Amino acid sequence: MHAYRSHTCGDLTAAHAGETVRLSGWVHRVRDHGGVLFVDLRDHYGMTQVLADSDSPAFAAMDKLRAETVIRIDGRVKLRDASLINPKLPTGEIEVYATDLEVLGPSDELPLPVFGDQEYPEETRLAYRFLDLRRESLHNNIMLRSQVIRSIRNRMWDQGFTEFQTPIITASSPEGARDFLVPSRLHPGKFYALPQAPQQFKQLIMVAGFDKYFQIAPCFRDEDPRADRSPTDFYQLDLEMSFVDQEDVFAAIQPVIQGLFEEFGNGRPVDANWPRIPYAEALLKYGSDKPDLRNPIEMQVVSDHFRGSGFGIFAKLLEQEGTEVRAIPAPTGGSRKFADRMNAFAQREGLPGMGYIFWRKAEDGSTEAAGPIAKALGAEPTEAIRQQLGLGEGDAVFFLGGKPEQFEAVAGRARNEIGRELGLTQENQFKFAWIVDFPMYEKTDDGRIDFSHNPFSMPQGGLDALNGDPLQVKGYQYDLACNGYELISGAIRNHKPEIMFKAFELAGYPASEVEKRFGGMVKAFRYGAPPHGGCAAGIDRIVMLLADEVNIRQVIMFPMNQRAEDLMMGAPSEPTNEQLRDLRLRVLPKE
Amino acid sequence: MHAYRSHTCGDLTAAHAGETVRLSGWVHRVRDHGGVLFVDLRDHYGMTQVLADSDSPAFAAMDKLRAETVIRIDGRVKLRDASLINPKLPTGEIEVYATDLEVLGPSDELPLPVFGDQEYPEETRLAYRFLDLRRESLHNNIMLRSQVIRSIRNRMWDQGFTEFQTPIITASSPEGARDFLVPSRLHPGKFYALPQAPQQFKQLIMVAGFDKYFQIAPCFRDEDPRADRSPTDFYQLDLEMSFVDQEDVFAAIQPVIQGLFEEFGNGRPVDANWPRIPYAEALLKYGSDKPDLRNPIEMQVVSDHFRGSGFGIFAKLLEQEGTEVRAIPAPTGGSRKFADRMNAFAQREGLPGMGYIFWRKAEDGSTEAAGPIAKALGAEPTEAIRQQLGLGEGDAVFFLGGKPEQFEAVAGRARNEIGRELGLTQENQFKFAWIVDFPMYEKTDDGRIDFSHNPFSMPQGGLDALNGDPLQVKGYQYDLACNGYELISGAIRNHKPEIMFKAFELAGYPASEVEKRFGGMVKAFRYGAPPHGGCAAGIDRIVMLLADEVNIRQVIMFPMNQRAEDLMMGAPSEPTNEQLRDLRLRVLPKE
Repeated sequence: MHAYRSHTCGDLTAAHAGETVRLSGWVHRVRDHGGVLFVDLRDHYGMTQVLADSDSPAFAAMDKLRAETVIRIDGRVKLRDASLINPKLPTGEIEVYATDLEVLGPSDELPLPVFGDQEYPEETRLAYRFLDLRRESLHNNIMLRSQVIRSIRNRMWDQGFTEFQTPIITASSPEGARDFLVPSRLHPGKFYALPQAPQQFKQLIMVAGFDKYFQIAPCFRDEDPRADRSPTDFYQLDLEMSFVDQEDVFAAIQPVIQGLFEEFGNGRPVDANWPRIPYAEALLKYGSDKPDLRNPIEMQVVSDHFRGSGFGIFAKLLEQEGTEVRAIPAPTGGSRKFADRMNAFAQREGLPGMGYIFWRKAEDGSTEAAGPIAKALGAEPTEAIRQQLGLGEGDAVFFLGGKPEQFEAVAGRARNEIGRELGLTQENQFKFAWIVDFPMYEKTDDGRIDFSHNPFSMPQGGLDALNGDPLQVKGYQYDLACNGYELISGAIRNHKPEIMFKAFELAGYPASEVEKRFGGMVKAFRYGAPPHGGCAAGIDRIVMLLADEVNIRQVIMFPMNQRAEDLMMGAPSEPTNEQLRDLRLRVLPKE
Repeated sequence: MHAYRSHTCGDLTAAHAGETVRLSGWVHRVRDHGGVLFVDLRDHYGMTQVLADSDSPAFAAMDKLRAETVIRIDGRVKLRDASLINPKLPTGEIEVYATDLEVLGPSDELPLPVFGDQEYPEETRLAYRFLDLRRESLHNNIMLRSQVIRSIRNRMWDQGFTEFQTPIITASSPEGARDFLVPSRLHPGKFYALPQAPQQFKQLIMVAGFDKYFQIAPCFRDEDPRADRSPTDFYQLDLEMSFVDQEDVFAAIQPVIQGLFEEFGNGRPVDANWPRIPYAEALLKYGSDKPDLRNPIEMQVVSDHFRGSGFGIFAKLLEQEGTEVRAIPAPTGGSRKFADRMNAFAQREGLPGMGYIFWRKAEDGSTEAAGPIAKALGAEPTEAIRQQLGLGEGDAVFFLGGKPEQFEAVAGRARNEIGRELGLTQENQFKFAWIVDFPMYEKTDDGRIDFSHNPFSMPQGGLDALNGDPLQVKGYQYDLACNGYELISGAIRNHKPEIMFKAFELAGYPASEVEKRFGGMVKAFRYGAPPHGGCAAGIDRIVMLLADEVNIRQVIMFPMNQRAEDLMMGAPSEPTNEQLRDLRLRVLPKE
């Protein structure tokens, strides 16, 4: 017989009754039922009930077992009494009467139990990650992640893409975030960098004549701590295609993502209709460039009804250039109580409050508008607003005014809040939208023009467009939004050096700077570059959505804590003097 | 019609004759056949012949094309004249008469041609890697690599393994080679390290209760330059299994590797019989722990025939303790000329020469032994040697004597040389062997005991064995040899802390040092560790064998040069002062 097992702990069924078997696994739980000992024996594949009474030669050893000890048992498979069958367990029809027991790996007293659902501080869980990973929900998340990545790979191959690895030890290329640097020993004083993304490499792969590339790519960014992201690295499905336009990229990736969510979404509906929403429209209607379309609320501009009206605050506001009043319809939200709840929300957001109107049944049976704004505004404009928004009795509307860029974000959050509070947002499904036509440039706080997103995107209209107002230039740049998250970001690239230099010039970068930063890629574009584009999808985020987790550390096998420390392995740590000498580096004292 | 193509350059056949098509690709070659221009248009998928005569609106543009320009053409598919059909090309039956041509990506004068087989200096090829990658053989190698990795993944999943990613930014863990360090900005003065291998993580995955792990894992080692390896990183198929012994690991991986070589070996025979050869036997018979079994030569000890014999050099040598004389049979090598060639080889290896005997037909028709050793040794011992080795007329034997550890390596090379020179080694096939029973320890040059291979291996005989002579202890450690290369290395691990501490103690490491270096793993072993083992296979090496390449840079998309520089991206490079300040580092001047 095999040294450790004839079956796994998930194998045995009634069909094995009477067989002599050997199992190995972890002692999940020991119970003493008056002279009969029961061990739930656990391995990767399942759980089997093992028992011994005082007649068994294994009894004495079993009596001393501590939870999480690894043991090997020999025994006979027995059918359980009908009353003791556990239909939830694949092995629930049987138990194994142990005749021999060997301890393969003893366990000390546990700092963190595996059995049970008690919450434990995350620092303890990270320091003993190998124990935490034995718990069922985390174990399942990690298996899900692996299966998701496998499925992505298969789907990408099926779409005709080929996976290539790009270098991990490479050149510094400031793309927005901070690089992790790697000092060179062979070239002291010089440093490599870990790639923030394989952006330049995947573009070079296209220039090298490979047609459809993908990679499950590790990306490294030296980020300041934030709850919902890893402080060091993340994984993305990175892809790039040659001789394509934007719709080709959408057509290639939609079946992959949609199929993935259908496969692993646990039956949650996956919308097959992925609308294209221009960036400006997304901000107007949803207050976000990653709208949650499970929420049916769409905001509208209602400035005209307030201009010169009796509601002085907005009337006055609208006299300033660039201001607007937008309405957030709240169907079924038509009560003072709900209006008060939303006011409380607004105050938490730092606003004085949020104006509103709601419609209720009047004493005479007709519909009447209520709230201070309705009163100040008067019947006609109030009714015009109601009609514009298609609202009626029992509904409400909330207003925000000012310069859109100053209130759009909070309007978006108010829309989320209203949708959730009123149960309008349909949970347990996945809704997607391509956000398109991103602006190439934005005005910075100090009035300069800078890239608003990816500087490598092709401007719509090419070189001509760059000769006009930069703030009007849109890029062939797109995001995929899902349930309020940005799942994918991508672009058709700027593959023409002259357009690239012009685009950077507008953002204040002279040609020399472009050559210095992106020299490898710019050089390549001079020797026959194909039109190309692609995108990158966040793997961690996809798994979080599928696993219904909000903590990124719940979907990574060995995550850093938020201070970028690995508590289990003890990273980062002090280097040895010899290491520093090899690298010709000195650590400076704290200032 | 699509903006860039209705078909790829590999699509069109006679069935498309008469159709109007659009193609995009690179101008591989332009030929002017007296007023008719021919362009071989190339993309990832193939090559299509495009032509234009002076009647075509595309003629003028085509006349100006430079090689490697990216163009889009519209045209009509025409059958070629029967005499012009190219049966080697999938599109060889047709050509496309161009009616429109657009330059999508112009090309400067090329530093390196794509068309043709001219050799170019490797530094130029690396600096313009994106051009070199367009060449057919390199393009094919990179595609092969991708397909090999895809096949490995599928085969591993089929064997019940699950892929997990382990951290790339992690703790320094000295495992023999130098770490690449990554300074921490959030914890100035502390450093992360890039993993030399996921060794500790994969063992932790087993302790965490996952059963069969694999990963296509990037491994980072700060190596000194050597021709046949990457100076920074390499990829391995890393795997680990719980509740297994050595034979379980062999049974899991053989179908993967064998299947891979059958799939991608281009019909070269793949031996299904993988013998287990103890390490000591491998060194004796083949002079190597990675023997090339395509070579049938097996060495033998022939000391007894020389002890006290008339061949004084060996007779005297054998009076010293620990010495041996070994014979390398050379069937069909029985000529003075071949003996001279091997002597020349021995001199290149720094030896004075190599003793030999060969057997030829004497004038009387009998078989006679020739050479100085035969003369000095006398007829009877010479005949005994012939009989022991099973040699006859037309064969030869070469001798090496001394302490085996001092001549084994050169004996192994002599065996290779003889096998190759005499055509005994059967080229164009793959032969495998598991080398087992590696010694745990060796004596260092200064007389200390140190680990000879992986310190994490379980010693055969467990704790008891460690109480005897360390140099006699064998480990459950194994390599897979293929055609003279080490393809795989692995072990059943030492999962018991008390045996681990003892094993390290013998090699001179106190417990405190073990805790310091491998604390994460040792801690985990105290909380229920399963018996486990695994191995790692070199992906680059596998692809090199399959692609029949000896230069590792021929199977990596974007390799470093031998000085660990990326000439295309300009890595490593000087950091900015701001970066150094963030990390609190100073670069010291050269001493």
